[in-house]
Amino acid sequence: MPKLVDHEVRRREVADAVVRLIRRDGVEAVTIRRVAAESGWAPGVLAHYFADKDALLLAAFRRVADAVVDRTVRQRVGGPPLSLLRWFCRNTLPLDQTRRAELQVWFAFLGHALARPALAAAQREVYRQWRQALAGILQAAADRGELAAGLDPEAEAAALAGFIDGLALQAVFDPAAFPPARQAALLDARLATVRRDRTGAHATR
Amino acid sequence: MPKLVDHEVRRREVADAVVRLIRRDGVEAVTIRRVAAESGWAPGVLAHYFADKDALLLAAFRRVADAVVDRTVRQRVGGPPLSLLRWFCRNTLPLDQTRRAELQVWFAFLGHALARPALAAAQREVYRQWRQALAGILQAAADRGELAAGLDPEAEAAALAGFIDGLALQAVFDPAAFPPARQAALLDARLATVRRDRTGAHATR
Repeated sequence: MPKLVDHEVRRREVADAVVRLIRRDGVEAVTIRRVAAESGWAPGVLAHYFADKDALLLAAFRRVADAVVDRTVRQRVGGPPLSLLRWFCRNTLPLDQTRRAELQVWFAFLGHALARPALAAAQREVYRQWRQALAGILQAAADRGELAAGLDPEAEAAALAGFIDGLALQAVFDPAAFPPARQAALLDARLATVRRDRTGAHATR
Repeated sequence: MPKLVDHEVRRREVADAVVRLIRRDGVEAVTIRRVAAESGWAPGVLAHYFADKDALLLAAFRRVADAVVDRTVRQRVGGPPLSLLRWFCRNTLPLDQTRRAELQVWFAFLGHALARPALAAAQREVYRQWRQALAGILQAAADRGELAAGLDPEAEAAALAGFIDGLALQAVFDPAAFPPARQAALLDARLATVRRDRTGAHATR
């Protein structure tokens, strides 16, 4: 079905153009006219694929979310649950240009989505899936006896997701105060508190 | 100097109108025309006080930041540093309608500010002041021997600010998943990890 594939490719190209526009000039730069210029497709063609501006923004948001999930799940490291947990967390911190760009789009979308129930619902769903993924890994660690005593996987997943998201937010706004090495150190100190067997500097926490 | 006072009052009334517009319809709703309608001032009067849309947004952001600081600092509880720390953290979580509204404006502004260096600088400065305030309280706790061993006040302030901000973000988007009681419980579990003398359920962390 080459036709279907073409449609998918076209939608993706447009979504990528929206991502570039958001990064460069913010959500307000996303108009049919500018997306047309950026993607190389005529406005009439865009209208065929996307009903309005919010549909374009949603496509860009999904594109970024998919890229994160793809990198996190498909390229994931082996090893015990808590190594996987670290890999998951590192994938949503702005530790390099790719992740920084993803997070800029993410937070820009988020500010816009607050006043738009349909977009907010998409955002909420992605966050829920993320917390579930973290809770699943924490539960796997608990099942192996590797989780600190007294930790509830679900509560810890919510707390950890909050920590990662908040750290990412501050690091995106203030890269000078949060170079990658500092982000990584803060993450590792945080993750040390979930391990049952703590050694070294974190043993005192 | 009654004239000066009037100017301040007028600026504040306009900023409050911008805050209401952002909450209701998002940052994109903020135009000179709509702010004029919302505030009851003529567009020409607004132009006298605010050069452009970003100046209006900045005024609204500062208004919210000032309200948070005012409530946090002037109405603060007495007691030891770690009680003060809890009070600080609770003031920036959406535990009631007032704080929820403040945070909606905060995150909406933030998404918009990403692509605008002057607004991003204002945001960055507020976050830095917040981390410094938290670090100061943590240092005071350390000086009294009340901080968990091995904790660096500055690193812990950054980690804690990240946690609070990320939790607030998720709770604003997903109030059903994060009712006030759950937010408070997550915060208290987090704060238990900074105390030297841990008792009860948190002693096992």
